[in-house]
Amino acid sequence: MKVGYLGPEGTFSEEAGKVYKKLLKGHVEMMPFSTIHDVLLAADHGHIDEAIVPIENSTDGTIGVVTDMLAKEVDLKIKQEIVLPVYQYLLAQKGIRLSEVTDVISNPPPIEQSKGFLRKHLPKAKLHLSYSTSEAARQVALSLGEKVISHGKVKGPVFAAIGPLAAAKLYGLSVIAKKINAKDNQTRFVVLAKRDGGRTGKDKTSIVFSIAKDRPGGLHALLSVFADRSINLTRIESRPSKKALGEYYFFIDMQGHRDDKNIKEALVEAKKDVAFFKFLGSYPRFGGKK
Amino acid sequence: MKVGYLGPEGTFSEEAGKVYKKLLKGHVEMMPFSTIHDVLLAADHGHIDEAIVPIENSTDGTIGVVTDMLAKEVDLKIKQEIVLPVYQYLLAQKGIRLSEVTDVISNPPPIEQSKGFLRKHLPKAKLHLSYSTSEAARQVALSLGEKVISHGKVKGPVFAAIGPLAAAKLYGLSVIAKKINAKDNQTRFVVLAKRDGGRTGKDKTSIVFSIAKDRPGGLHALLSVFADRSINLTRIESRPSKKALGEYYFFIDMQGHRDDKNIKEALVEAKKDVAFFKFLGSYPRFGGKK
Repeated sequence: MKVGYLGPEGTFSEEAGKVYKKLLKGHVEMMPFSTIHDVLLAADHGHIDEAIVPIENSTDGTIGVVTDMLAKEVDLKIKQEIVLPVYQYLLAQKGIRLSEVTDVISNPPPIEQSKGFLRKHLPKAKLHLSYSTSEAARQVALSLGEKVISHGKVKGPVFAAIGPLAAAKLYGLSVIAKKINAKDNQTRFVVLAKRDGGRTGKDKTSIVFSIAKDRPGGLHALLSVFADRSINLTRIESRPSKKALGEYYFFIDMQGHRDDKNIKEALVEAKKDVAFFKFLGSYPRFGGKK
Repeated sequence: MKVGYLGPEGTFSEEAGKVYKKLLKGHVEMMPFSTIHDVLLAADHGHIDEAIVPIENSTDGTIGVVTDMLAKEVDLKIKQEIVLPVYQYLLAQKGIRLSEVTDVISNPPPIEQSKGFLRKHLPKAKLHLSYSTSEAARQVALSLGEKVISHGKVKGPVFAAIGPLAAAKLYGLSVIAKKINAKDNQTRFVVLAKRDGGRTGKDKTSIVFSIAKDRPGGLHALLSVFADRSINLTRIESRPSKKALGEYYFFIDMQGHRDDKNIKEALVEAKKDVAFFKFLGSYPRFGGKK
Protein backbone atom coordinates (compact mmCIF):
# COMPACT_ATOMS: atom_id res chain seq x y z
CA MET A 1 0.00 0.00 0.00
CA LYS A 2 1.27 3.47 -0.93
CA VAL A 3 0.75 6.36 1.51
CA GLY A 4 1.68 9.88 0.45
CA TYR A 5 2.70 12.66 2.88
CA LEU A 6 4.00 16.22 2.83
CA GLY A 7 7.76 15.87 2.57
CA PRO A 8 10.63 16.14 2.58
CA GLU A 9 11.78 13.64 5.19
CA GLY A 10 12.01 15.09 8.65
CA THR A 11 8.60 16.79 8.63
CA PHE A 12 5.90 16.23 11.25
CA SER A 13 3.79 14.57 8.53
CA GLU A 14 6.44 11.87 8.18
CA GLU A 15 6.32 11.34 11.95
CA ALA A 16 2.53 10.98 11.76
CA GLY A 17 3.09 8.45 8.97
CA LYS A 18 5.27 6.37 11.27
CA VAL A 19 2.55 6.35 13.93
CA TYR A 20 0.03 5.27 11.29
CA LYS A 21 2.32 2.48 10.09
CA LYS A 22 2.35 1.06 13.62
CA LEU A 23 -1.45 1.22 13.82
CA LEU A 24 -1.80 -0.67 10.52
CA LYS A 25 0.81 -3.35 11.20
CA GLY A 26 0.96 -4.01 7.46
CA HIS A 27 3.42 -3.22 4.69
CA VAL A 28 3.24 0.48 3.86
CA GLU A 29 5.35 2.39 1.37
CA MET A 30 5.69 6.03 2.45
CA MET A 31 6.01 8.54 -0.41
CA PRO A 32 6.95 12.21 0.14
CA PHE A 33 5.20 14.92 -1.94
CA SER A 34 6.30 18.52 -2.20
CA THR A 35 2.92 20.18 -1.55
CA ILE A 36 -0.32 19.30 0.23
CA HIS A 37 -2.15 20.04 -3.03
CA ASP A 38 -0.08 17.39 -4.86
CA VAL A 39 -0.52 14.67 -2.25
CA LEU A 40 -4.31 15.14 -2.12
CA LEU A 41 -4.62 15.10 -5.91
CA ALA A 42 -2.46 11.95 -6.10
CA ALA A 43 -4.83 10.17 -3.69
CA ASP A 44 -7.89 11.50 -5.51
CA HIS A 45 -6.57 10.25 -8.87
CA GLY A 46 -5.62 6.87 -7.40
CA HIS A 47 -1.86 7.23 -7.92
CA ILE A 48 -1.48 6.48 -4.21
CA ASP A 49 -3.85 4.58 -1.90
CA GLU A 50 -3.94 7.03 0.97
CA ALA A 51 -2.70 10.49 1.94
CA ILE A 52 -1.69 11.63 5.39
CA VAL A 53 -1.89 15.39 5.96
CA PRO A 54 -2.20 17.85 8.87
CA ILE A 55 -5.73 19.25 9.21
CA GLU A 56 -5.54 21.48 12.28
CA ASN A 57 -3.11 22.76 14.87
CA SER A 58 -4.02 23.89 18.36
CA THR A 59 -2.22 27.23 17.87
CA ASP A 60 -2.74 28.01 14.19
CA GLY A 61 -6.13 26.43 13.63
CA THR A 62 -7.29 24.81 10.43
CA ILE A 63 -4.84 24.05 7.63
CA GLY A 64 -6.84 25.94 5.02
CA VAL A 65 -5.69 24.14 1.88
CA VAL A 66 -6.69 20.73 3.31
CA THR A 67 -10.18 21.71 4.43
CA ASP A 68 -10.79 23.74 1.26
CA MET A 69 -9.78 20.84 -0.99
CA LEU A 70 -11.80 18.30 1.03
CA ALA A 71 -14.87 20.51 0.69
CA LYS A 72 -14.57 21.29 -2.99
CA GLU A 73 -11.78 19.69 -5.02
CA VAL A 74 -11.34 16.04 -4.12
CA ASP A 75 -13.55 13.08 -3.29
CA LEU A 76 -11.69 11.63 -0.31
CA LYS A 77 -12.89 10.45 3.09
CA ILE A 78 -11.23 10.54 6.50
CA LYS A 79 -10.46 6.98 7.63
CA GLN A 80 -8.20 7.72 10.60
CA GLU A 81 -7.07 10.64 12.74
CA ILE A 82 -3.68 10.96 14.46
CA VAL A 83 -2.86 13.59 17.07
CA LEU A 84 0.78 14.44 17.79
CA PRO A 85 2.48 16.94 20.10
CA VAL A 86 4.54 19.46 18.13
CA TYR A 87 7.83 20.92 19.32
CA GLN A 88 9.82 23.59 17.54
CA TYR A 89 13.58 24.09 17.93
CA LEU A 90 15.88 26.99 17.13
CA LEU A 91 18.60 25.63 14.83
CA ALA A 92 21.88 27.18 13.71
CA GLN A 93 25.30 26.28 12.41
CA LYS A 94 27.72 24.84 14.97
CA GLY A 95 29.31 27.31 17.39
CA ILE A 96 26.60 29.99 17.10
CA ARG A 97 25.12 31.20 20.38
CA LEU A 98 21.58 32.44 20.92
CA SER A 99 22.84 35.97 21.67
CA GLU A 100 24.56 36.14 18.28
CA VAL A 101 21.44 35.42 16.21
CA THR A 102 20.26 38.46 14.22
CA ASP A 103 17.88 36.81 11.72
CA VAL A 104 15.36 33.98 12.02
CA ILE A 105 13.82 32.06 9.13
CA SER A 106 10.93 29.57 9.04
CA ASN A 107 7.47 28.80 7.71
CA PRO A 108 4.72 31.14 9.06
CA PRO A 109 3.04 28.67 11.51
CA PRO A 110 6.27 27.77 13.42
CA ILE A 111 7.11 31.49 13.65
CA GLU A 112 3.60 32.20 14.94
CA GLN A 113 3.89 29.36 17.47
CA SER A 114 7.26 30.69 18.69
CA LYS A 115 6.33 34.40 18.96
CA GLY A 116 6.53 34.37 22.77
CA PHE A 117 10.07 32.97 22.71
CA LEU A 118 11.18 35.37 19.97
CA ARG A 119 9.78 38.42 21.78
CA LYS A 120 11.57 37.42 24.98
CA HIS A 121 14.92 36.18 23.68
CA LEU A 122 15.35 37.69 20.21
CA PRO A 123 13.19 40.84 20.20
CA LYS A 124 15.37 42.54 17.59
CA ALA A 125 15.78 39.58 15.24
CA LYS A 126 14.63 40.13 11.69
CA LEU A 127 12.08 37.51 10.60
CA HIS A 128 12.17 35.81 7.20
CA LEU A 129 9.68 33.37 5.70
CA SER A 130 10.39 30.11 3.90
CA TYR A 131 8.07 27.58 2.29
CA SER A 132 8.81 24.85 4.83
CA THR A 133 10.83 24.32 8.00
CA SER A 134 12.95 21.92 6.01
CA GLU A 135 13.80 24.62 3.45
CA ALA A 136 14.64 27.05 6.26
CA ALA A 137 17.01 24.54 7.88
CA ARG A 138 18.62 23.76 4.52
CA GLN A 139 19.23 27.45 3.80
CA VAL A 140 20.75 28.00 7.24
CA ALA A 141 22.98 24.93 6.78
CA LEU A 142 24.13 25.89 3.29
CA SER A 143 24.64 29.63 3.21
CA LEU A 144 22.57 31.93 5.40
CA GLY A 145 23.89 30.50 8.66
CA GLU A 146 27.56 31.32 8.28
CA LYS A 147 29.09 33.57 10.89
CA VAL A 148 31.48 35.96 9.18
CA ILE A 149 34.22 37.23 11.50
CA SER A 150 36.21 40.27 10.48
CA HIS A 151 38.81 41.94 12.74
CA GLY A 152 37.67 39.73 15.61
CA LYS A 153 34.05 40.87 15.36
CA VAL A 154 30.96 39.09 14.03
CA LYS A 155 30.04 40.83 10.77
CA GLY A 156 26.77 40.72 8.91
CA PRO A 157 23.64 38.72 9.77
CA VAL A 158 23.69 35.44 11.72
CA PHE A 159 20.73 33.25 10.76
CA ALA A 160 18.88 30.58 12.72
CA ALA A 161 15.95 28.42 11.54
CA ILE A 162 12.88 27.31 13.49
CA GLY A 163 11.96 23.68 12.84
CA PRO A 164 11.56 20.15 14.17
CA LEU A 165 14.43 18.19 15.69
CA ALA A 166 14.48 15.94 12.62
CA ALA A 167 15.45 18.93 10.44
CA ALA A 168 18.52 19.54 12.66
CA LYS A 169 19.64 15.94 12.15
CA LEU A 170 18.97 16.02 8.41
CA TYR A 171 21.00 19.17 7.79
CA GLY A 172 23.67 18.84 10.50
CA LEU A 173 22.55 21.89 12.48
CA SER A 174 22.96 22.50 16.21
CA VAL A 175 20.00 23.04 18.52
CA ILE A 176 20.49 26.40 20.24
CA ALA A 177 17.08 26.47 21.98
CA LYS A 178 14.69 23.58 22.67
CA LYS A 179 10.89 23.44 22.51
CA ILE A 180 10.51 27.16 21.89
CA ASN A 181 6.86 27.06 20.81
CA ALA A 182 3.70 27.48 22.85
CA LYS A 183 3.10 24.73 25.41
CA ASP A 184 0.54 22.03 24.67
CA ASN A 185 0.88 22.55 20.94
CA GLN A 186 -0.71 19.64 19.09
CA THR A 187 -1.34 18.88 15.45
CA ARG A 188 -4.15 16.67 14.22
CA PHE A 189 -3.43 14.67 11.08
CA VAL A 190 -5.94 12.75 8.98
CA VAL A 191 -5.47 9.73 6.76
CA LEU A 192 -7.53 10.24 3.60
CA ALA A 193 -8.68 7.47 1.28
CA LYS A 194 -11.53 6.57 -1.06
CA ARG A 195 -13.35 4.89 1.86
CA ASP A 196 -13.76 5.98 5.46
CA GLY A 197 -13.28 3.82 8.58
CA GLY A 198 -15.41 1.04 10.02
CA ARG A 199 -17.35 1.36 13.28
CA THR A 200 -15.27 0.73 16.42
CA GLY A 201 -17.66 2.14 19.05
CA LYS A 202 -15.32 5.07 19.78
CA ASP A 203 -15.69 7.01 16.57
CA LYS A 204 -15.97 10.48 15.15
CA THR A 205 -17.82 11.74 12.09
CA SER A 206 -16.96 14.85 10.05
CA ILE A 207 -19.11 16.94 7.73
CA VAL A 208 -18.79 20.24 5.89
CA PHE A 209 -21.70 22.45 4.83
CA SER A 210 -22.59 26.00 3.95
CA ILE A 211 -25.68 28.04 4.70
CA ALA A 212 -27.36 30.25 2.13
CA LYS A 213 -26.39 33.87 2.79
CA ASP A 214 -30.00 35.01 3.07
CA ARG A 215 -30.61 32.59 5.97
CA PRO A 216 -28.77 34.17 8.90
CA GLY A 217 -30.37 31.77 11.40
CA GLY A 218 -29.33 28.76 9.31
CA LEU A 219 -26.37 27.70 11.44
CA HIS A 220 -28.55 27.73 14.54
CA ALA A 221 -31.17 25.58 12.78
CA LEU A 222 -28.51 23.10 11.70
CA LEU A 223 -26.93 22.86 15.15
CA SER A 224 -30.44 22.14 16.49
CA VAL A 225 -30.50 18.95 14.38
CA PHE A 226 -27.57 17.64 16.42
CA ALA A 227 -28.53 19.16 19.80
CA ASP A 228 -32.02 17.59 19.55
CA ARG A 229 -30.39 14.15 19.24
CA SER A 230 -27.84 14.70 22.04
CA ILE A 231 -24.95 14.42 19.60
CA ASN A 232 -21.75 15.91 20.97
CA LEU A 233 -19.93 18.24 18.58
CA THR A 234 -16.16 18.17 19.19
CA ARG A 235 -15.17 20.82 16.65
CA ILE A 236 -16.91 23.65 14.83
CA GLU A 237 -14.74 25.67 12.48
CA SER A 238 -15.58 28.21 9.85
CA ARG A 239 -13.72 28.87 6.60
CA PRO A 240 -14.48 31.65 4.13
CA SER A 241 -16.31 30.48 1.01
CA LYS A 242 -13.82 32.47 -1.10
CA LYS A 243 -16.80 33.97 -2.87
CA ALA A 244 -17.84 36.92 -0.74
CA LEU A 245 -17.31 38.33 2.74
CA GLY A 246 -19.71 36.76 5.21
CA GLU A 247 -20.13 33.46 3.32
CA TYR A 248 -18.66 30.47 5.12
CA TYR A 249 -18.18 26.75 5.04
CA PHE A 250 -18.59 25.13 8.46
CA PHE A 251 -16.58 22.04 9.36
CA ILE A 252 -18.13 20.00 12.14
CA ASP A 253 -16.77 16.93 13.91
CA MET A 254 -19.09 14.93 16.15
CA GLN A 255 -18.84 11.92 18.42
CA GLY A 256 -20.27 8.77 16.87
CA HIS A 257 -20.28 6.76 13.64
CA ARG A 258 -22.51 7.16 10.59
CA ASP A 259 -23.92 3.70 11.40
CA ASP A 260 -25.13 4.89 14.84
CA LYS A 261 -28.90 5.50 14.76
CA ASN A 262 -28.85 9.11 16.02
CA ILE A 263 -26.00 10.15 13.68
CA LYS A 264 -27.66 8.47 10.70
CA GLU A 265 -30.92 10.35 11.36
CA ALA A 266 -29.14 13.67 11.95
CA LEU A 267 -27.17 13.42 8.70
CA VAL A 268 -30.39 12.85 6.71
CA GLU A 269 -32.03 15.80 8.46
CA ALA A 270 -29.00 18.13 8.15
CA LYS A 271 -28.82 17.78 4.37
CA LYS A 272 -32.33 19.16 3.91
CA ASP A 273 -31.78 22.80 4.67
CA VAL A 274 -28.29 23.79 3.54
CA ALA A 275 -26.79 25.36 0.43
CA PHE A 276 -24.02 22.73 0.33
CA PHE A 277 -23.40 19.51 2.25
CA LYS A 278 -20.61 16.93 2.13
CA PHE A 279 -20.02 13.89 4.34
CA LEU A 280 -16.28 13.63 5.10
CA GLY A 281 -16.18 10.25 6.82
CA SER A 282 -16.50 8.29 10.06
CA TYR A 283 -13.29 7.07 11.67
CA PRO A 284 -11.87 5.83 15.00
CA ARG A 285 -11.10 8.53 17.55
CA PHE A 286 -7.34 8.78 18.13
CA GLY A 287 -6.43 7.25 21.48
CA GLY A 288 -10.04 6.11 21.92
CA LYS A 289 -10.27 2.60 23.37
CA LYS A 290 -13.01 0.17 22.44
CA MET B 1 -5.87 62.98 15.59
CA LYS B 2 -3.29 60.25 15.01
CA VAL B 3 -4.32 57.07 13.18
CA GLY B 4 -1.86 54.19 12.90
CA TYR B 5 -1.87 51.61 10.09
CA LEU B 6 0.18 48.68 8.83
CA GLY B 7 2.81 50.24 6.62
CA PRO B 8 4.89 50.89 4.70
CA GLU B 9 3.18 53.32 2.31
CA GLY B 10 1.53 51.59 -0.60
CA THR B 11 -0.27 48.91 1.43
CA PHE B 12 -4.00 48.25 1.30
CA SER B 13 -4.20 49.48 4.91
CA GLU B 14 -3.02 52.89 3.80
CA GLU B 15 -5.73 52.87 1.13
CA ALA B 16 -8.33 52.02 3.79
CA GLY B 17 -6.93 54.93 5.83
CA LYS B 18 -7.61 57.30 2.94
CA VAL B 19 -11.23 56.12 2.73
CA TYR B 20 -11.57 56.64 6.49
CA LYS B 21 -10.10 60.16 6.24
CA LYS B 22 -12.84 61.07 3.76
CA LEU B 23 -15.54 59.68 6.08
CA LEU B 24 -14.21 61.74 9.01
CA LYS B 25 -13.74 65.01 7.13
CA GLY B 26 -11.38 66.14 9.91
CA HIS B 27 -7.63 66.51 10.26
CA VAL B 28 -6.03 63.08 10.53
CA GLU B 29 -2.34 62.29 10.76
CA MET B 30 -1.64 58.85 9.29
CA MET B 31 1.25 56.94 10.89
CA PRO B 32 2.70 53.73 9.40
CA PHE B 33 3.73 50.87 11.76
CA SER B 34 5.80 47.88 10.79
CA THR B 35 3.59 45.15 12.30
CA ILE B 36 -0.09 44.72 13.21
CA HIS B 37 1.03 43.83 16.74
CA ASP B 38 2.81 47.20 17.09
CA VAL B 39 -0.07 49.31 15.77
CA LEU B 40 -2.61 47.63 18.08
CA LEU B 41 -0.35 48.04 21.14
CA ALA B 42 0.26 51.72 20.26
CA ALA B 43 -3.51 52.33 20.23
CA ASP B 44 -4.00 50.32 23.43
CA HIS B 45 -1.29 52.33 25.22
CA GLY B 46 -2.67 55.64 23.94
CA HIS B 47 0.35 56.58 21.81
CA ILE B 48 -2.06 56.94 18.89
CA ASP B 49 -5.80 57.67 18.95
CA GLU B 50 -6.96 54.99 16.55
CA ALA B 51 -5.64 52.02 14.59
CA ILE B 52 -6.84 50.85 11.22
CA VAL B 53 -6.15 47.18 10.45
CA PRO B 54 -7.49 44.42 8.18
CA ILE B 55 -9.68 41.93 10.05
CA GLU B 56 -10.86 39.52 7.35
CA ASN B 57 -10.48 38.77 3.68
CA SER B 58 -13.03 36.98 1.52
CA THR B 59 -10.41 34.47 0.30
CA ASP B 60 -8.11 34.04 3.30
CA GLY B 61 -10.57 34.51 6.12
CA THR B 62 -9.79 36.05 9.48
CA ILE B 63 -6.50 37.89 10.05
CA GLY B 64 -5.57 35.80 13.08
CA VAL B 65 -3.30 38.25 14.87
CA VAL B 66 -5.99 40.95 14.90
CA THR B 67 -8.81 38.77 16.22
CA ASP B 68 -6.52 37.06 18.74
CA MET B 69 -5.26 40.40 20.10
CA LEU B 70 -8.78 41.88 20.24
CA ALA B 71 -9.95 38.86 22.24
CA LYS B 72 -7.08 38.67 24.69
CA GLU B 73 -4.36 41.33 24.57
CA VAL B 74 -5.82 44.78 24.06
CA ASP B 75 -8.82 46.75 25.26
CA LEU B 76 -9.97 48.34 22.01
CA LYS B 77 -13.40 48.65 20.41
CA ILE B 78 -14.45 48.67 16.78
CA LYS B 79 -15.80 52.12 15.86
CA GLN B 80 -15.97 51.80 12.09
CA GLU B 81 -15.66 49.16 9.37
CA ILE B 82 -14.37 49.73 5.83
CA VAL B 83 -14.67 47.20 3.02
CA LEU B 84 -12.37 47.48 0.00
CA PRO B 85 -11.91 45.39 -3.15
CA VAL B 86 -8.40 43.93 -3.35
CA TYR B 87 -6.46 43.45 -6.57
CA GLN B 88 -3.07 41.78 -6.88
CA TYR B 89 -0.58 42.47 -9.69
CA LEU B 90 2.45 40.57 -10.95
CA LEU B 91 5.38 42.99 -10.83
CA ALA B 92 8.86 42.71 -12.33
CA GLN B 93 11.77 44.80 -13.50
CA LYS B 94 11.31 46.59 -16.80
CA GLY B 95 11.60 44.47 -19.94
CA ILE B 96 10.78 41.15 -18.30
CA ARG B 97 8.01 39.13 -19.93
CA LEU B 98 5.60 36.79 -18.17
CA SER B 99 7.07 33.78 -19.99
CA GLU B 100 10.54 34.56 -18.61
CA VAL B 101 9.53 34.52 -14.93
CA THR B 102 10.98 31.52 -13.05
CA ASP B 103 10.47 32.63 -9.42
CA VAL B 104 7.63 34.45 -7.64
CA ILE B 105 7.87 36.13 -4.24
CA SER B 106 5.15 37.56 -1.99
CA ASN B 107 3.40 37.35 1.37
CA PRO B 108 1.37 34.12 1.87
CA PRO B 109 -2.17 35.61 1.44
CA PRO B 110 -1.49 37.25 -1.98
CA ILE B 111 0.12 33.99 -3.16
CA GLU B 112 -2.91 32.04 -1.92
CA GLN B 113 -5.27 34.51 -3.65
CA SER B 114 -3.32 34.16 -6.92
CA LYS B 115 -2.96 30.35 -6.97
CA GLY B 116 -5.33 29.98 -9.93
CA PHE B 117 -3.31 32.42 -12.04
CA LEU B 118 0.01 30.85 -11.02
CA ARG B 119 -1.18 27.31 -11.84
CA LYS B 120 -2.35 28.43 -15.26
CA HIS B 121 0.40 30.82 -16.33
CA LEU B 122 3.45 29.96 -14.22
CA PRO B 123 2.95 26.31 -13.19
CA LYS B 124 6.70 25.72 -12.87
CA ALA B 125 7.59 28.93 -11.01
CA LYS B 126 9.30 28.47 -7.66
CA LEU B 127 7.43 30.28 -4.88
CA HIS B 128 9.18 32.31 -2.18
CA LEU B 129 7.68 34.01 0.85
CA SER B 130 8.33 37.52 2.14
CA TYR B 131 6.99 39.36 5.18
CA SER B 132 4.96 41.85 3.14
CA THR B 133 4.10 42.60 -0.48
CA SER B 134 6.11 45.77 -0.08
CA GLU B 135 9.23 43.82 0.93
CA ALA B 136 8.72 41.44 -2.01
CA ALA B 137 8.49 44.37 -4.46
CA ARG B 138 11.54 46.01 -2.92
CA GLN B 139 13.60 42.82 -3.23
CA VAL B 140 12.57 42.37 -6.85
CA ALA B 141 13.43 46.01 -7.58
CA LEU B 142 16.81 45.90 -5.85
CA SER B 143 18.40 42.57 -6.60
CA LEU B 144 16.28 39.48 -7.16
CA GLY B 145 14.59 40.82 -10.26
CA GLU B 146 17.62 41.28 -12.49
CA LYS B 147 17.67 39.34 -15.72
CA VAL B 148 21.21 38.06 -16.30
CA ILE B 149 21.94 37.44 -19.98
CA SER B 150 24.94 35.35 -20.91
CA HIS B 151 25.79 34.33 -24.50
CA GLY B 152 22.43 35.72 -25.61
CA LYS B 153 20.46 33.52 -23.19
CA VAL B 154 18.66 34.37 -19.96
CA LYS B 155 20.70 32.83 -17.15
CA GLY B 156 19.64 32.13 -13.60
CA PRO B 157 16.30 32.90 -11.97
CA VAL B 158 14.02 35.75 -13.06
CA PHE B 159 11.92 36.98 -10.13
CA ALA B 160 8.51 38.67 -10.04
CA ALA B 161 6.60 39.92 -7.01
CA ILE B 162 2.86 39.77 -6.30
CA GLY B 163 1.52 42.97 -4.76
CA PRO B 164 -0.75 45.99 -5.07
CA LEU B 165 -0.39 48.55 -7.83
CA ALA B 166 0.93 51.06 -5.30
CA ALA B 167 3.97 48.82 -4.67
CA ALA B 168 4.81 48.95 -8.39
CA LYS B 169 4.77 52.75 -8.31
CA LEU B 170 6.79 52.92 -5.08
CA TYR B 171 9.60 50.68 -6.36
CA GLY B 172 9.55 51.52 -10.07
CA LEU B 173 8.45 48.05 -11.20
CA SER B 174 6.49 47.14 -14.33
CA VAL B 175 3.11 45.41 -14.19
CA ILE B 176 3.39 42.19 -16.20
CA ALA B 177 -0.07 40.84 -15.28
CA LYS B 178 -3.08 42.73 -13.88
CA LYS B 179 -5.62 41.67 -11.24
CA ILE B 180 -4.30 38.12 -11.00
CA ASN B 181 -6.14 37.19 -7.80
CA ALA B 182 -9.52 35.55 -7.30
CA LYS B 183 -12.48 37.60 -8.50
CA ASP B 184 -14.62 39.42 -5.93
CA ASN B 185 -11.78 39.51 -3.44
CA GLN B 186 -12.60 41.96 -0.66
CA THR B 187 -10.88 42.92 2.56
CA ARG B 188 -12.71 44.25 5.59
CA PHE B 189 -10.78 46.73 7.72
CA VAL B 190 -11.75 48.00 11.16
CA VAL B 191 -10.94 51.25 12.91
CA LEU B 192 -10.12 50.50 16.55
CA ALA B 193 -10.27 53.02 19.39
CA LYS B 194 -10.98 53.23 23.11
CA ARG B 195 -14.66 53.87 22.33
CA ASP B 196 -16.96 52.28 19.78
CA GLY B 197 -19.36 54.07 17.40
CA GLY B 198 -22.65 55.84 18.06
CA ARG B 199 -26.02 54.51 16.86
CA THR B 200 -26.86 55.39 13.24
CA GLY B 201 -29.77 52.97 12.66
CA LYS B 202 -27.70 50.86 10.22
CA ASP B 203 -25.22 49.33 12.62
CA LYS B 204 -23.38 46.15 13.44
CA THR B 205 -22.24 44.75 16.76
CA SER B 206 -19.32 42.36 17.34
CA ILE B 207 -18.61 39.98 20.20
CA VAL B 208 -16.12 37.22 20.96
CA PHE B 209 -16.73 34.34 23.37
CA SER B 210 -15.62 30.83 24.18
CA ILE B 211 -17.58 27.84 25.38
CA ALA B 212 -16.34 25.53 28.13
CA LYS B 213 -14.94 22.37 26.55
CA ASP B 214 -17.24 20.10 28.55
CA ARG B 215 -20.34 21.83 27.10
CA PRO B 216 -20.49 20.58 23.51
CA GLY B 217 -24.00 22.01 23.02
CA GLY B 218 -22.86 25.44 24.26
CA LEU B 219 -22.58 27.11 20.87
CA HIS B 220 -26.09 26.00 19.97
CA ALA B 221 -27.42 27.40 23.28
CA LEU B 222 -25.67 30.71 22.65
CA LEU B 223 -26.93 31.01 19.07
CA SER B 224 -30.46 30.41 20.46
CA VAL B 225 -30.13 33.64 22.47
CA PHE B 226 -29.87 35.55 19.18
CA ALA B 227 -32.27 33.40 17.12
CA ASP B 228 -35.00 33.80 19.79
CA ARG B 229 -34.77 37.59 19.39
CA SER B 230 -34.68 37.54 15.54
CA ILE B 231 -31.19 39.02 15.51
CA ASN B 232 -29.41 38.49 12.20
CA LEU B 233 -25.87 37.17 12.50
CA THR B 234 -23.71 38.37 9.59
CA ARG B 235 -20.52 36.50 10.49
CA ILE B 236 -19.62 33.51 12.63
CA GLU B 237 -15.95 32.59 12.71
CA SER B 238 -14.00 30.26 14.93
CA ARG B 239 -10.38 30.64 16.02
CA PRO B 240 -8.40 28.10 18.03
CA SER B 241 -7.99 28.99 21.70
CA LYS B 242 -4.25 28.19 21.37
CA LYS B 243 -4.64 26.05 24.47
CA ALA B 244 -5.84 22.68 23.20
CA LEU B 245 -7.31 21.10 20.09
CA GLY B 246 -11.08 21.50 20.00
CA GLU B 247 -11.18 24.69 22.11
CA TYR B 248 -12.31 27.74 20.17
CA TYR B 249 -13.10 31.40 20.38
CA PHE B 250 -16.12 32.36 18.31
CA PHE B 251 -16.32 35.80 16.70
CA ILE B 252 -19.85 36.88 15.89
CA ASP B 253 -21.06 39.99 14.07
CA MET B 254 -24.76 40.86 14.18
CA GLN B 255 -27.04 43.48 12.69
CA GLY B 256 -28.00 46.19 15.17
CA HIS B 257 -26.51 48.46 17.84
CA ARG B 258 -25.93 47.72 21.52
CA ASP B 259 -28.53 50.45 22.28
CA ASP B 260 -31.23 48.51 20.36
CA LYS B 261 -33.56 46.74 22.80
CA ASN B 262 -33.20 43.20 21.39
CA ILE B 263 -29.38 43.43 21.13
CA LYS B 264 -29.10 44.85 24.66
CA GLU B 265 -31.16 41.96 26.06
CA ALA B 266 -29.29 39.34 24.05
CA LEU B 267 -25.88 40.59 25.21
CA VAL B 268 -26.95 40.36 28.87
CA GLU B 269 -28.28 36.83 28.27
CA ALA B 270 -25.27 35.66 26.23
CA LYS B 271 -22.78 36.52 28.97
CA LYS B 272 -24.44 34.15 31.44
CA ASP B 273 -23.40 30.82 30.06
CA VAL B 274 -19.95 31.13 28.49
CA ALA B 275 -16.38 30.51 29.63
CA PHE B 276 -15.27 33.88 28.22
CA PHE B 277 -17.13 36.87 26.78
CA LYS B 278 -15.97 40.21 25.37
CA PHE B 279 -17.98 42.97 23.71
CA LEU B 280 -16.01 44.32 20.73
CA GLY B 281 -18.14 47.32 19.80
CA SER B 282 -21.11 48.65 17.83
CA TYR B 283 -20.35 50.64 14.69
CA PRO B 284 -21.95 51.86 11.44
CA ARG B 285 -22.25 49.25 8.68
CA PHE B 286 -19.99 50.16 5.76
CA GLY B 287 -22.04 51.49 2.86
CA GLY B 288 -25.16 51.31 5.02
CA LYS B 289 -27.44 54.32 4.54
CA LYS B 290 -29.46 55.85 7.36
